[in-house]
Amino acid sequence: MTAQPQGVLLSARLEKIRDKARLLRIHSLRATSAAGSGHPTSCLSAAELVAATFFHAMKFDPADPNSLSSDRFVLSKGHAAPVLYAALAEAGVFPVSRLLTLRQFGSELEGHPTPLVPGVDAATGSLGQGLSVGAGLALGARAEKSSARVYVLLGDGEMAEGNVWEAAAFAAHHRIDNLTALVDVNGLGQSERTMYRHDTEVYRHKFDAQGWQTEVIDGHDVPAVLAALDRAKATTGRPQAIIARTEKGHGISFLADKEGWHGKALSKAELEKALAEIGPIPQIPADDGRSYARQSLPAPPNFPAPAPPEYQRGQMVATREAFGTALRKLAAVHPKIVALDGDVKNSTFTEVLEKAYPDRLYQGYIAEQNLVGAGVGLAAQGQVPFVATFACFLSRAYDQVRMAAISRSNLNLCGSHCGVSIGEDGPSQMGLEDLAMFRAIPGATVLYPGDAVAAERLTETAARRSGICYVRTGRPKTPVLYPNDEQFPVPGFKVLRQSTSDRAAIITAGVTLHEALKAYEQLAAKGIAIRVIDLYCVKPIDAPALGEHVRASGGRVVTVEDHYPEGGLGEAALGALITDGIPLNAARRLAVGRVPHSGKAEELLDAFGISARHIVAAVEKMT
Amino acid sequence: MTAQPQGVLLSARLEKIRDKARLLRIHSLRATSAAGSGHPTSCLSAAELVAATFFHAMKFDPADPNSLSSDRFVLSKGHAAPVLYAALAEAGVFPVSRLLTLRQFGSELEGHPTPLVPGVDAATGSLGQGLSVGAGLALGARAEKSSARVYVLLGDGEMAEGNVWEAAAFAAHHRIDNLTALVDVNGLGQSERTMYRHDTEVYRHKFDAQGWQTEVIDGHDVPAVLAALDRAKATTGRPQAIIARTEKGHGISFLADKEGWHGKALSKAELEKALAEIGPIPQIPADDGRSYARQSLPAPPNFPAPAPPEYQRGQMVATREAFGTALRKLAAVHPKIVALDGDVKNSTFTEVLEKAYPDRLYQGYIAEQNLVGAGVGLAAQGQVPFVATFACFLSRAYDQVRMAAISRSNLNLCGSHCGVSIGEDGPSQMGLEDLAMFRAIPGATVLYPGDAVAAERLTETAARRSGICYVRTGRPKTPVLYPNDEQFPVPGFKVLRQSTSDRAAIITAGVTLHEALKAYEQLAAKGIAIRVIDLYCVKPIDAPALGEHVRASGGRVVTVEDHYPEGGLGEAALGALITDGIPLNAARRLAVGRVPHSGKAEELLDAFGISARHIVAAVEKMT
Repeated sequence: MTAQPQGVLLSARLEKIRDKARLLRIHSLRATSAAGSGHPTSCLSAAELVAATFFHAMKFDPADPNSLSSDRFVLSKGHAAPVLYAALAEAGVFPVSRLLTLRQFGSELEGHPTPLVPGVDAATGSLGQGLSVGAGLALGARAEKSSARVYVLLGDGEMAEGNVWEAAAFAAHHRIDNLTALVDVNGLGQSERTMYRHDTEVYRHKFDAQGWQTEVIDGHDVPAVLAALDRAKATTGRPQAIIARTEKGHGISFLADKEGWHGKALSKAELEKALAEIGPIPQIPADDGRSYARQSLPAPPNFPAPAPPEYQRGQMVATREAFGTALRKLAAVHPKIVALDGDVKNSTFTEVLEKAYPDRLYQGYIAEQNLVGAGVGLAAQGQVPFVATFACFLSRAYDQVRMAAISRSNLNLCGSHCGVSIGEDGPSQMGLEDLAMFRAIPGATVLYPGDAVAAERLTETAARRSGICYVRTGRPKTPVLYPNDEQFPVPGFKVLRQSTSDRAAIITAGVTLHEALKAYEQLAAKGIAIRVIDLYCVKPIDAPALGEHVRASGGRVVTVEDHYPEGGLGEAALGALITDGIPLNAARRLAVGRVPHSGKAEELLDAFGISARHIVAAVEKMT
Repeated sequence: MTAQPQGVLLSARLEKIRDKARLLRIHSLRATSAAGSGHPTSCLSAAELVAATFFHAMKFDPADPNSLSSDRFVLSKGHAAPVLYAALAEAGVFPVSRLLTLRQFGSELEGHPTPLVPGVDAATGSLGQGLSVGAGLALGARAEKSSARVYVLLGDGEMAEGNVWEAAAFAAHHRIDNLTALVDVNGLGQSERTMYRHDTEVYRHKFDAQGWQTEVIDGHDVPAVLAALDRAKATTGRPQAIIARTEKGHGISFLADKEGWHGKALSKAELEKALAEIGPIPQIPADDGRSYARQSLPAPPNFPAPAPPEYQRGQMVATREAFGTALRKLAAVHPKIVALDGDVKNSTFTEVLEKAYPDRLYQGYIAEQNLVGAGVGLAAQGQVPFVATFACFLSRAYDQVRMAAISRSNLNLCGSHCGVSIGEDGPSQMGLEDLAMFRAIPGATVLYPGDAVAAERLTETAARRSGICYVRTGRPKTPVLYPNDEQFPVPGFKVLRQSTSDRAAIITAGVTLHEALKAYEQLAAKGIAIRVIDLYCVKPIDAPALGEHVRASGGRVVTVEDHYPEGGLGEAALGALITDGIPLNAARRLAVGRVPHSGKAEELLDAFGISARHIVAAVEKMT
């Protein structure tokens, strides 16, 4: 063999990638101009990086780009969606004609990527989340012994997001070497130049400090990009960062490295001027209107029933502990049950899973944003992840949970240590807004078990359901209320006390359910009967069924919750009843009405108005 | 002068710091044992660092430790609260006797620090937030030409939090050289050893990469700690990180560097054994029960009225633009109005402030967690900060907002681009859970202006009010509805259409207020009168006053909002009405019931059920 054929091959390969980059530019400009909005210049800086990744580095089946054996691409800088869509079209995932439907109401090609688009695993567009998703996808591939690799394209603007650095540390710690980050350093943010402009060495230094393999290249130099991707693929033991100096708007004289063009589509005249600079423009046939939206996003697979709960009625068990037990039992019957921990496994009881199945718990340390993003990536590979930490610290990842819902992810989360009933640690450790948070996630299931049996059963329910499922657990030990064979349908509730003479219905869940049962006894001693309802499923609510019990209780309702009044169980129940047309004669919400304080759990339940005494008083006042 | 006197002086100083460290250990052990809970070993690793900072480096008035001229200390690793309280007591801020009230319901010395404690500026305990607060305090000192310095003590466990690295980048970029971070690398997390154990070089490398001055020391070597603090103080142009190798539980043989002791108070017998190792134990007098809780947390100062709105009725103005105009007008009459931007100032219109007053906008780039933390620090120095970004991206900083409320901070936030009415950018850019988020913040004021006049007036209201204030603004231009002299009290609402024959009340705000006005016309054409209510203040709500209008509208209510159904305006209004005893004959909530999609604003308002057509249908169905 002489050198020439190889040289010719290389030259042909370079020409192919350069031409693909050219086409990605053309498609990005045309699609955004057709839409009348979008971020063409953010696409142009990445054209060579995306072309080289898709048409040189990646191996995937265009007919099944989200399969376990396919390499994946995560566009962390989601506003560059058109360049991703262009690459998917050029790769044959859907026709090029589809690109001109960008941002239209009927198109799967939204302004920012969502998994409605084949080849997209997670929604992006809230910046700085893609590297966590990529780390999760890569871990998921590894868990399934797939040799697939994951590429994540980040913008330099989003490198300011702390989530990126949580993900970088996590990936290095877990030696995720099937993960390559490409950083498109175009130096221009939305409103001004980025913090470090074109100082690529800063990014290299930061990734170095995390333990990544790093290299800096010219992101428009195709041979350099290909060589960097080849070196990344050959690396073992650590993730790789390719830091690419680029120009925003590269390739078009009047856009390149110019301020004032972020998020602006070109006018018809500007588009013509731009295209004239790019060379031959392909004809694109008219779109036939056929949607390529993914019809069935991965649903959690079915699995055999785990071992049932094994408690005695009245036994004192914290719901958080029962959650840990449930994970262990689920893991025994389902190989894809995994947990992600933020260094609180001895509080959330995910340590019970780890002790039985050490490789089923991913230690994410104290970095909740990355836990959720990595969970979304794992779920996209078919794992069944549970992210668990204190309920209050899930607020740290609310944006990531929001994006997980837009990603149609089957992600489960458990928040322990809810409410003032945690006691002495004080308000910073009390989850008092988590019901509001998770209820406002579209399609989410919000579960709040009142005892250990319910906690085990509802954890299984979460593992089986689609979408975001949240399980709220408590710190204190509370008595077991239900028989071990009790079932907890969703939606649903349990009526624990009822009679034909009930004068009010108490709707509650969790620790305050036990307060309601105490209130029942105290009121019974005074001859006042109440109905006690365990609304273990806070979302969705079966309003007509709940309404029947409220009607039978004189239309009088007291809601009680270890949560702030807004957006919690009380608003959920009352809102559902009233919009369902259930007549309410009197309603009272008992909830934690102000920032709480350190103290003993019982002291706090009473001081903040949600103890048995307050329930008794509320009932007496309204009846 | 000979060397000896200086040597003697140095020796005396070292002895003093060593003795203070010894006392901090004793107090921390005793207080947690008295409380029966807490984190003594996390205090012991930091004893020398805290003693040296308080009794060598810091200058502050014990009678006024939160003043602008005082050096400040932020305990980012908030679970080490007892060592902070011990230092404050030894410094004379309150009596040492107070320490044994730790974690009691009646004590200001909660399990984690809050600003109820004199000398504490912000609540900590949700890890990784203190460096942002410290950066804000330091910037606030600089803005007021104070020479005060800020010290932040971090644990190595919390260095996994991305927020820390957002703050580190921000502090270096803004050359905040009156800020020193001390990292207590004890190598032990809550549930296992930390990611990097005792590898102090990793932390040095990470801070180096951010542009900080760094040094690594033995955190129990008092001369080394003092020298490092001296060098930090002498540094100009960049913040300083002192990375200290320590032992968790240092000083007590059976605790030092031992796993399994996180968050555990010593039993009486263990305490005696521990104290026997520390040397002479001071007697502590019985506490007299007097509280030292700060009675008046800094309230926003009064200021002259800004220039009034100057609009024409019917003029098309986006509320986000009016917000920017309001900031400029406020800045003209109030020197402490500042804004923090996440590289979206041309979208939120904080650029209007920056153009008029370039030094009144802090560019925080795309790092929302740090924006909020820094805002809390600025507010604690008496600045009046507005953190502004897209409403959806405030979800990125929900934990920081939660902590800001526990900090009793006077922090203002503005979320632009709320709801589906932003159009083509798609769901990742739409704020649809922000009302739920901010309503669930205790004491927060939640404002949702429906036109430019309201937006200007309510921005002024936010600047004047205590606590967390949230202003929700929209992307589309909408017609000006109110005269320029209209006032918008809190709580309050406006009745824009009413008659004696109203058959339903429409309660809404923002962009859907304009849909309600269109529905009014369409229904009027059919002879159906409705009442149109602008609930510009979503929290708090004047339920009795609102109830009068509902009664006058036949007890029929339709709520409409560009927000998810849960926790938003509809639940707020219905919850307030029903618990206030207002009889409701029919109620319907119109809201965005599922993950939305890209499309034109009008198309989306209609597709997601919140346009005039849907209001008309809802009214017709119930009447």
